[in-house]
Amino acid sequence: MAWPSAIDLLGAAAGILTTASFIPQVVKTLRSGQTRDISLTMWVAFCTGVALWTLYGVMLEAWPIVAANVPTLGLAGTILVVKIRNRGRE
Amino acid sequence: MAWPSAIDLLGAAAGILTTASFIPQVVKTLRSGQTRDISLTMWVAFCTGVALWTLYGVMLEAWPIVAANVPTLGLAGTILVVKIRNRGRE
Repeated sequence: MAWPSAIDLLGAAAGILTTASFIPQVVKTLRSGQTRDISLTMWVAFCTGVALWTLYGVMLEAWPIVAANVPTLGLAGTILVVKIRNRGRE
Repeated sequence: MAWPSAIDLLGAAAGILTTASFIPQVVKTLRSGQTRDISLTMWVAFCTGVALWTLYGVMLEAWPIVAANVPTLGLAGTILVVKIRNRGRE
């Protein structure tokens, strides 16, 4: 197996950061239950877009795209669910 | 010029949705000035990751990656700046 190139490592770091970045938002949202400053429109559009990225990766059999997007969808979806549950209350 | 394939269109729709999704959050954040329910850690990590994706696209000369990430960085960076300005006040 070849060593990954510097560019591969850069892409991996980028993917890990953008996906893992949602973890502290999920923790904060689940702890506080507060979503007043979070845009419903953003999270509906974002989750739809991430679902389309996942489908795109599946259709291309591009598994890194799938692997990066499935956890993002789970994390962003959690925030969206809390936001939807809070509607009418904030 | 060939017609874009269904998979190309799916990828384009995914990219437009995930990038444009930040617009309503920017509008909401700039209007209200409130960022209490937004995680600082998320937006620092997310902006760093998007900057690395942009660099990755530049190094690969993969301009669709650059084109998708530069506007995202501008939008997400705006939210981060408001959050940082609000620190100690929320």
